[in-house]
Formats: sequence, C-alpha cells, structure tokens
Amino acid sequence: MRFFSDNAAPVHPAVMRALSEVDTLDTAYDGDRWSKQLDGRLSHLFETDVRAFWVPSGTAANCLALAAICPPHGSVVCHRDAHIQNDECGAPEFYTHGAKLLLADGDGAKVTPETLEAVLNVQRYDIHQQVPSAISITNQTEYGRAYTADEVAAIGAVARARGLHFHMDGARFANAVVATGASPADLTWRGGVDVLSFGFVKNGGMNAEALVFFRPELADATVFRRKRAGLLLSKGRYLAAQILAMLDNDLWLDCAHASNDGAQLIAAAAGERLIHPADGNEVFLRVTADEAASLRAKGFDFYDWGPGEARLVVSWDQRADDIRPLAEAIAAL
Amino acid sequence: MRFFSDNAAPVHPAVMRALSEVDTLDTAYDGDRWSKQLDGRLSHLFETDVRAFWVPSGTAANCLALAAICPPHGSVVCHRDAHIQNDECGAPEFYTHGAKLLLADGDGAKVTPETLEAVLNVQRYDIHQQVPSAISITNQTEYGRAYTADEVAAIGAVARARGLHFHMDGARFANAVVATGASPADLTWRGGVDVLSFGFVKNGGMNAEALVFFRPELADATVFRRKRAGLLLSKGRYLAAQILAMLDNDLWLDCAHASNDGAQLIAAAAGERLIHPADGNEVFLRVTADEAASLRAKGFDFYDWGPGEARLVVSWDQRADDIRPLAEAIAAL
Amino acid sequence: MRFFSDNAAPVHPAVMRALSEVDTLDTAYDGDRWSKQLDGRLSHLFETDVRAFWVPSGTAANCLALAAICPPHGSVVCHRDAHIQNDECGAPEFYTHGAKLLLADGDGAKVTPETLEAVLNVQRYDIHQQVPSAISITNQTEYGRAYTADEVAAIGAVARARGLHFHMDGARFANAVVATGASPADLTWRGGVDVLSFGFVKNGGMNAEALVFFRPELADATVFRRKRAGLLLSKGRYLAAQILAMLDNDLWLDCAHASNDGAQLIAAAAGERLIHPADGNEVFLRVTADEAASLRAKGFDFYDWGPGEARLVVSWDQRADDIRPLAEAIAAL
Amino acid sequence: MRFFSDNAAPVHPAVMRALSEVDTLDTAYDGDRWSKQLDGRLSHLFETDVRAFWVPSGTAANCLALAAICPPHGSVVCHRDAHIQNDECGAPEFYTHGAKLLLADGDGAKVTPETLEAVLNVQRYDIHQQVPSAISITNQTEYGRAYTADEVAAIGAVARARGLHFHMDGARFANAVVATGASPADLTWRGGVDVLSFGFVKNGGMNAEALVFFRPELADATVFRRKRAGLLLSKGRYLAAQILAMLDNDLWLDCAHASNDGAQLIAAAAGERLIHPADGNEVFLRVTADEAASLRAKGFDFYDWGPGEARLVVSWDQRADDIRPLAEAIAAL
Repeated sequence: MRFFSDNAAPVHPAVMRALSEVDTLDTAYDGDRWSKQLDGRLSHLFETDVRAFWVPSGTAANCLALAAICPPHGSVVCHRDAHIQNDECGAPEFYTHGAKLLLADGDGAKVTPETLEAVLNVQRYDIHQQVPSAISITNQTEYGRAYTADEVAAIGAVARARGLHFHMDGARFANAVVATGASPADLTWRGGVDVLSFGFVKNGGMNAEALVFFRPELADATVFRRKRAGLLLSKGRYLAAQILAMLDNDLWLDCAHASNDGAQLIAAAAGERLIHPADGNEVFLRVTADEAASLRAKGFDFYDWGPGEARLVVSWDQRADDIRPLAEAIAAL
Repeated sequence: MRFFSDNAAPVHPAVMRALSEVDTLDTAYDGDRWSKQLDGRLSHLFETDVRAFWVPSGTAANCLALAAICPPHGSVVCHRDAHIQNDECGAPEFYTHGAKLLLADGDGAKVTPETLEAVLNVQRYDIHQQVPSAISITNQTEYGRAYTADEVAAIGAVARARGLHFHMDGARFANAVVATGASPADLTWRGGVDVLSFGFVKNGGMNAEALVFFRPELADATVFRRKRAGLLLSKGRYLAAQILAMLDNDLWLDCAHASNDGAQLIAAAAGERLIHPADGNEVFLRVTADEAASLRAKGFDFYDWGPGEARLVVSWDQRADDIRPLAEAIAAL
Repeated sequence: MRFFSDNAAPVHPAVMRALSEVDTLDTAYDGDRWSKQLDGRLSHLFETDVRAFWVPSGTAANCLALAAICPPHGSVVCHRDAHIQNDECGAPEFYTHGAKLLLADGDGAKVTPETLEAVLNVQRYDIHQQVPSAISITNQTEYGRAYTADEVAAIGAVARARGLHFHMDGARFANAVVATGASPADLTWRGGVDVLSFGFVKNGGMNAEALVFFRPELADATVFRRKRAGLLLSKGRYLAAQILAMLDNDLWLDCAHASNDGAQLIAAAAGERLIHPADGNEVFLRVTADEAASLRAKGFDFYDWGPGEARLVVSWDQRADDIRPLAEAIAAL
Repeated sequence: MRFFSDNAAPVHPAVMRALSEVDTLDTAYDGDRWSKQLDGRLSHLFETDVRAFWVPSGTAANCLALAAICPPHGSVVCHRDAHIQNDECGAPEFYTHGAKLLLADGDGAKVTPETLEAVLNVQRYDIHQQVPSAISITNQTEYGRAYTADEVAAIGAVARARGLHFHMDGARFANAVVATGASPADLTWRGGVDVLSFGFVKNGGMNAEALVFFRPELADATVFRRKRAGLLLSKGRYLAAQILAMLDNDLWLDCAHASNDGAQLIAAAAGERLIHPADGNEVFLRVTADEAASLRAKGFDFYDWGPGEARLVVSWDQRADDIRPLAEAIAAL
C-alpha cells in the first residue's frame, strides 16, 4: 500500500466521466461553455464574486498568484518549510521576476502573527531592500496542520495592518476545510485572503487546479501571464470539467473526508510517535530506521522526512480497510 | 460545421482509453512507468537517441526549447508570421529571459536560406546586439505550408554554417510528415533540427505535447526549467499516456491523413481562391465579406485571416462526408 | 580628426570643475545636496513638476523608462532603426522582463502617426499577443533627424488616443532642441511625452544622464528598479554635479549649438551626397569605398554606416576651424 | 565628524587627477587605451591571468559575478547578513533571473565550512529545488571581520568538493588585504575564489569597481550582460582611469591602511564595548541610546545597527587626529 503521496492516487471516476462529457467540439482555450462556468460556480461556493482560472499545476497556481500580488522588487513572507520555498525549484522567483521569499518560523509549518511580525520588523523599508508585499500561507500546511478560520483572520489582520496582500496555497485546501469545519468563505476571504490556489489534483483530479481571486481586480494581468507561461491550454474544457466535477455534489469535500478519516486512523495508532497533530490527510511520525524498514518490509511505502521521521499521506481513494493494516503495523512497532 | 480550429476538436477515443488505462497508482511527476517510456518510444520513431519531455501546451514546448538553445542575450530568427512571434504573448521572451526574435520573410510563412541570410547578414555580431543563436521554423507553417526534408536540410545547413541551433515548432508536425511523405527523422534531425515541439493536441490529443531533443545534452537544464515553470504536472502519467496512445499503431499519422485529406477536398473546390498551396490541414482562401457571410449563413464556421481572407482548418475527426458540403458551398460561391 | 562618435569626446571643463566642487563629504547614494536639486532644476527647465533620476548611461535611462511604462506582457512601438532595438543588446527586454519591441517604418529613423498606426492596427489586442503599451521615439534620431514639437505632438495624440505611454530617447535631446528651436517643454510633455531620457554624456558630460518623468506617479517603482539594477551609485553627488553643471548657464545648449553648427558645415559641403537632412550633429553621406578611404587617408575618422554610407558625428568640442578641413575634403571628392 | 559610511568620503586626489589625464579623445565604451590595461594590471597584481571589467557600482559587480556562476534554477549560499541578501533590493535575483540565496550562519557575518555544510546538507539535489551552484562571501564582512587566506581556502575546499563556484564580494577587499597581510592572490584564487568584486569606491574611488574573473572562461557572457544591463558606460576611460590610479604605487593599500588604522584607534578605546573584533575599517559597538545621543551631541555621526549597537566606519581620508576625539569620547562614556 502506498502512502508516499496523494499525487500518486488515481483520478476519481466522476472526474473521468466529466472528461467524456466535454469530449465534443467547443471553443479553444478558455472560451468554452465549461470554462465560462468557473467564475460563477466558485463565486457561489465562496459566497462572493471571484475571478477564477484553471491551471494545470499547483505550482502554476501559486506562482501566478504571487506574480499578481508582489512586484519583482517586493518580497513575500512565508514559512521556511513552505512548498513555494522548498519544492518549486524557484518558480516563485521565475514568475515574479525575482521577488524574494522571507522565511518565518512556526510549529508544524504554521506561521503566526508573531512569527510574521518578527520577520517584518527587521525589514528596513528603504530602497536597498525588497519591499514586503505579501504573506503566503499553506492550508493545510506542509506538516499536515490546518489553520482555523480564526488563525487565518489573525494573519489577515497583520496583512491588512501592514498593507500586504495575502495568498493561500490550498493544494490541500479541501482537507483544511474538512479539518476545521469552516466554510470556504470563512477560511479564506473573510479572513483577509486575496487569492487562493485551490487544489484538486491531490484530491481526485487529474491535472486541473483553480486559481481563485477574491479581489478580481488583482487578476487583470493574470490572463496574460497565464498565456505567456504556456499555461493557457488549447483544450481548456478538459480542465474546467475536472473542477466542475469536483464541485458537483461536494465531491471535493467527500474526497477530503475520506483521506482525513484515513489519516485519523493512522494518527490514533501512532500515539506518542506523532510529531504534529494530524489535522488533515498527512501524518508525520517518529520512527527509527529499523522501524521504517520493518514497515516497508510489510509493503507500506512512504517517504522519510528527515532523520527519524516518516511522512504518511492518505489519498482520497483509500478506505478504512486499506489503512487499518498500516495502523496496526504502526501500533505494533 | 466548425472549421475555425483544430484545437476545438474532441479527443481521439484511443487517447481517452489510454487515460483510463493509466488510471491507477503510480509515482508522481514523471517517475511513472509511462513517462519513462517516452525517450525509448520517440527514439525508435526518430531512429536516433532522443530525450523527450511531456508538456501540457505547444507554447510550453516551444519556449522550453528556445530557452535551451538561446541565452537571454541571444536572438532567434523566425518567420515574421511565426506563432512564437504573434500568438504566444511573449512566452519566448519570458522563458528565455528576454532573448529577441528576429523576423524573416518568406511566402506562406516559410523562411528560406536566403531570407534567413538577409536577416543574419545585417546583424553586427558585437556586444551591442543580441547574438544570433538559433533558427526556429514551423512545420507545417502558420499558412498551412509544409517544409520538405530538403528544405529543412537547406535551413539546417545555414544553421550549421552560422553556428546556430535549430528548432522546429511542430504543432502540426504530423500534418507535415503526411504532406511531405518524409520520415520523421528526415524531416528533423537529419536536416539539422536540434529540438522539436512535437504536437499532439491539435491532432487528437487532450493536453500533452512532446518536447524532443535530438541532441540530448541540450536538455540538461530543461528538467529544471519545466519544473520551475509549473509545467511538471504531478500526475504526469496522464500526459505520457496520451502521447503513447498517439504513437501506437501510428495513430498520429492516421489522424493527420484524415485532416490533410479533408483539406484537399476544400482546396480542390477553392481553385483560384487558394492563397497558399494547402499542403496540410489548413486552407487559406480569398473570399469577400459577403461570401464569408454566406458561408457562415450555411453553418460553416471559420476565422477571418486579414481582410478578404479566410482560414479553414480541418480536424482529425472530420470525415469526407462532413467536409463535402463546405467544398460544394465554396465551389458555388 | 575624429568624427566617429560624440562618445569619444572629452568632458567639458565645467563638468570637470563641478566634480571638484562636490568632492567633499556628503550623504551616500542620492541623499546628497546635489542629487536633491535635480527635481527642482529640471522642473524649472521643463516648466512643470518632474521627477528626475541620475543614471550612468543612456541605455540605463531608456530601459528604466520603458520598465516604468510597459509591463512584461506589453509591447513598445519604436522605429526599426531605434537604438533600443539595435544597440542595447536586449536591455529593454532585460529591464522590462521580456516586453516586445514592435518595429515601425519612417524616413530618417522618424516614425509618423501613419507608420505607428500601421503597426498598431495589425495587433490583435487579445490575450495571445503582448499588449501595445507605449511608443518610444528618439529625438534627435539615429539618422540625425529632429522631430519638431508639432511632430512630437502628433505622435502624442496617437499615444493618447490609443491609451499608450510615450517615451523619448533623448541621448541627443540637446541637439534636437537646438535644431528645432522648440522649448524643452514643447518638445516633450506638452506634446504628450511621459518620460524622457535626457542625455548629457554625448554633449560634454562624463557619465551622468537624467531620467525625467513628466508624470511623476510613473516613477514610483523606478527608485527600486534603479537600485536593483546596480545603478544607484554610492557617491551619487558626482553624477548629479555633472547634470547641474550642464544646466548652469545653458551649457547644454551651448554645447549642442557648437556640434550642430559643425555638422552644418559638413552638410553644406556634402550637397547631393547627403542621405538625410542634417538637423543636428550627425551627417550621413553617400561615399564610395574609395572616397571613404581617401578621407581616412587624410586623417578623418568615421564609421561606415552600411554599404556606400558614412556617418560623421560632430562633438561639442570641435570648432569650425577643426571641421573646415573635413568639409573641404568632402567638397573636393 | 562623519563615521556613518565610507561611501560618504570624497575621492582621492590621485583619482581626480587621473580623470583629467584621460580627458581627451579616445574610443568609446571599453575600447580605449586605459580600459585595455585592466586585464594586464590586475593579472600582475593577482599573479595570474585574469579577465577584468570596470563597472560603476559594487552591486553591479556582485550581480554580474553571480549571473556568471549561477543559473536561474540555481542557488547561492551566503551569510544571512550578506550585502547581496539585505542591501541590494534583489539585484542578485534580477541579474541571475531568479536564482535563490540560501542563508548560512556565522559570527561577524563570516560563514565557515561548517555553517555552509549545514545549509548544503539539507538541500535535496532533485529537480524540485534550485541547485546549489555557488558560495559567496564578503571580505571584509558586513561586520568588519576579515577572512584570512586559510579561512578562504577552507571555504574554497568546500566549494571544490561540492562542485560549486566561489565568489568574493570585496567591496572592502583592500581593508581585508591590509588586515590579514595576505597577498591578493592568496586571499582569492589560491584559496579557490573564481571571481572577485574588487571595490575601489569606498576606498577613495569615485564610481568604478573592478569585476575580476580568475577563471576567464566564466566571463564569456559577462561582456553581453554588462551591456544589456546599461553598465557599459560610453566613456569608459573615466572608470578605467580610477582603477588604474588606485593601483598605481599601491594607493589602494595606502588608503586601506589609513582607514584600518583609524578603526584600530576607535576599537582600542572601545574595549568591552566591541561587538566584533575590528579587523578592518569598521567598528561595531554596544552603546545605549543615551550614549549614542551623547556622542552625536558632540558631532560624531554614525548609524545605529540594531538596538543598542552602533556602526562606526573610518574612511580613507580620516587621519589619526580626526579620529582621536571620537576615541576619547567613547572611552569617556
């Protein structure tokens, strides 16, 4: 059984069906009838007028977002373990034309108003330094933690007070919504978020993520940037369809419920081994090399995450029966 | 009936089936068993060792190619009607970090050794000008013309003599192969092409193109550039599968045969109206505004291409019976 | 005698003296008392509130200007012989992060409303093309022509009607002012110019040019871009001093009068050989290779400017007695 | 008396004289007889064949150096207090097209093999992260410390073992040479340094720094990058002359001796207040806000450097008699 990445999971059958349903003639790029539904459907979901774009990857969503809210001579404060810092090969720098990421601390890859202020307070705000322009957080974080709506709002307050834009990397936004029980609106724009990378691929999609602007005027140049980056795919309806299928009947929430529940099973078995509370679909455990090897010998696959640490990720398609053997193996270590 | 773009066509059923066949657990990004087949399958097709990458758009393929063969302080000679100049919103400049396109002339969007030399000869080759670094041609061209293998080789000879790299934008490479009867090898690297954007989307694919390096050492940085651009999709097997399905049993050639044949029907009916010989799946006609309106009134959809000109594109899924009504309507104008 | 470039001339003694006068302790960068005078002095000269920056080169001035008025996904229309197109090794693309130059025609490197419209009218204004964002003209042009105030205003009207910004490369602005007799204000912002590269180096300065924004709000990011490009020199007072010295007692006009007058002497002798009217300090002649060789044999140095053409440039420090021998030699050809 | 920056000092009389000596006709850009001497003169000084460029600022020198040794998808390890990280408004990101700086620790802004390894060891060296490509150190550092030749060589050994290039920001290289007594060669290329930003402006120059490549093949693209950045000034002889004047009769060492000696006077008076050993011309002191105010009341000007800290910089032109009053005032606090 594979627990190394939710990227490795297959695509939800409803998404596959949706591809067939749009498999007909229509306008190229994003002029088709499905692409045109994105704004409306996501505005409804978020209870406010949004401007939404499909893009084929989370990196693309994140970096188009950052380019919209940070000039080349600006800087973005994020957690030092953020995906945009460590796992995108400098895509933020490429898309922003050289903005700088400023790195904040915090348990479980969660920044706090205090850790953000600590970074912001040592900036000089003169022409010799890149100007702090935005805050970017990941929800659920790189260590499987979820920011609550209140926590988001507290960070939003820092952003507002400092005149900063606020981006949320929601590659696992669905898991955070399920984990916190907050509404999508409360977890984002009501807390001050300007733009969200709304992930679907890890949660049952194939290759479509939504980039959602809660302040539509920020998106004016994004239409050009998406094209200019080779991200305006010519048959866009096959991306739009995936997102729409995930939204239909709250499939996105069902999938996240499934993977979060699976992670709970593992976390419950892990007990003291847990490094971070398992809010969503990822569990980080303390395991010795021998223990890790013994789990692998039993057929469980996962990533080491630094020395003595393992990351186990549950995917949307893994059922309790699939996960219980792993939970038992961990409990038996 | 729509003749405005081969991007508007649906996806070939074999490609849809291929998506289902890879719809299972596997390694993320391009570590899966299908992505790993690309190099081998394309090396076989091209009769030489190639290094190949899937990417989700033709713009991405073109611009990763250009970034591999032209430094920021370099320039690329292309036709003044080239897609990279007119239809990619500056993606070449984005990916190359500001290289310049130098524009050459030629009938039917085809450059020739002479028109290339005319551009190259007025460059000064000093530090005040960007250094000519590459030639890029489109085959089939933006006006539906195909370069023959001999024509490619003649341009390749210019490239070699000048120390320039040579890129081919093959968004409709299949149509050019069918039109010329040349082998894929003869139409590319044997004529000096270093890197090919091998298009599948317009020819029955969904959202996967192949970027093919005939000089594998040129691709070393491309692995990073693809990631850094947000183009390394996390479930890459769904892109690889499309390309493999198109290659299976020469489906890519069958599709191009179909669309080229359809265009021949139209061209034959067009007679003196033809602006360019219709080598592939695109036909450019002289029509008055009234004539264009009358065709549209009959349900035929297409783009105006400058005043008094119409572009008609045949897609892989259009059969002779679908096209004959258009041919008759044109003949009857 | 050297007539190959006004860059080769020495520095005016008043500029050298000014360097000595600021050779004392003061604040670094542009916080010193001389740098702080630039805005006021240039506002006075231009009869409007301007925001001005010293920079060490004309390329720097031009490209900071373009970066202020054209986004990466934009385009700038200029003459196909413009310095920004042919002589800056892609600096506009570097500073704008990949904007495109669109090339217009016109005699003597002068664009006209008609030639600009011809370029603008074939742009599609959709997301597949870089958006026309600015016009840039050179005054005096690369072929020694001056735009009159009326001509500038006619181009300004195109810019206004199209919603474009308007930049003037004034590497030889002084020569254009003298040639036309127009006031600095009439030749720039009253005609719609938003930002001027005001050159001093070719006219007696050492290494300081002024970048002058007539719409100060356009300059907000320029303070960062100048720093970020390594152009915010640490002892800025030595640049400010040069500009102030050139402005004192209209030295800049005196120098331009001298070089323009010298060019008139040559032009008068050239007669039918003149390729373009010699408005300023540059003369372009038809000469055979033998004639060019004979002039050089007599000690006159100049650049060939394409086959059968020679460019002769007069510098601020060349007096009539210095030039007469050349004029006579040309007349005697 | 001003102790806030060596950038505020005037220009050495010998440099002013040198400007007069080159104030004559010569070839533009760097084709003149003085610019052509740089390679030879610096090769002699460094006892090896170097390729050298004048540039008008230290930021320009640093960032052209980094662009030569780090691709856009690479990273550069430097101290977290490095000038390139904190004081250049993202110029490294601009010139490298988005490379990332990785931040290492160390007392007095000095990295060590251990602190470099600590950063390098947590990099993953896969395509999801920018590839470590270079190490950059500052000598003398931002806290006035000098790396000895042995310390440089130890870092050079890390670079060699890791396949990294090695850059030295020598804005105050002269002070480091004087402080350590090492030869210029021992302090740079013999210790593995590939490229040096050799500063003159803080040490008596006006606006010329030297960028020195000890591995000349690394500089091939630099000729274009310098032009493309607007840094190839048209009257380059006035920059070359400054560097040559500073090298004549070891003036650069005399100036650094003077400022280092002055700093020693202050440091000796400071005693326990010293935060870092004062190796060069900068002294960092612990002072309360009241103490700082009292010093300022006596006419001494300097920067606060974080709470309770003051930075005092001695310039080349300050003599012992100028400094003694400050030393006494500090001793009397």
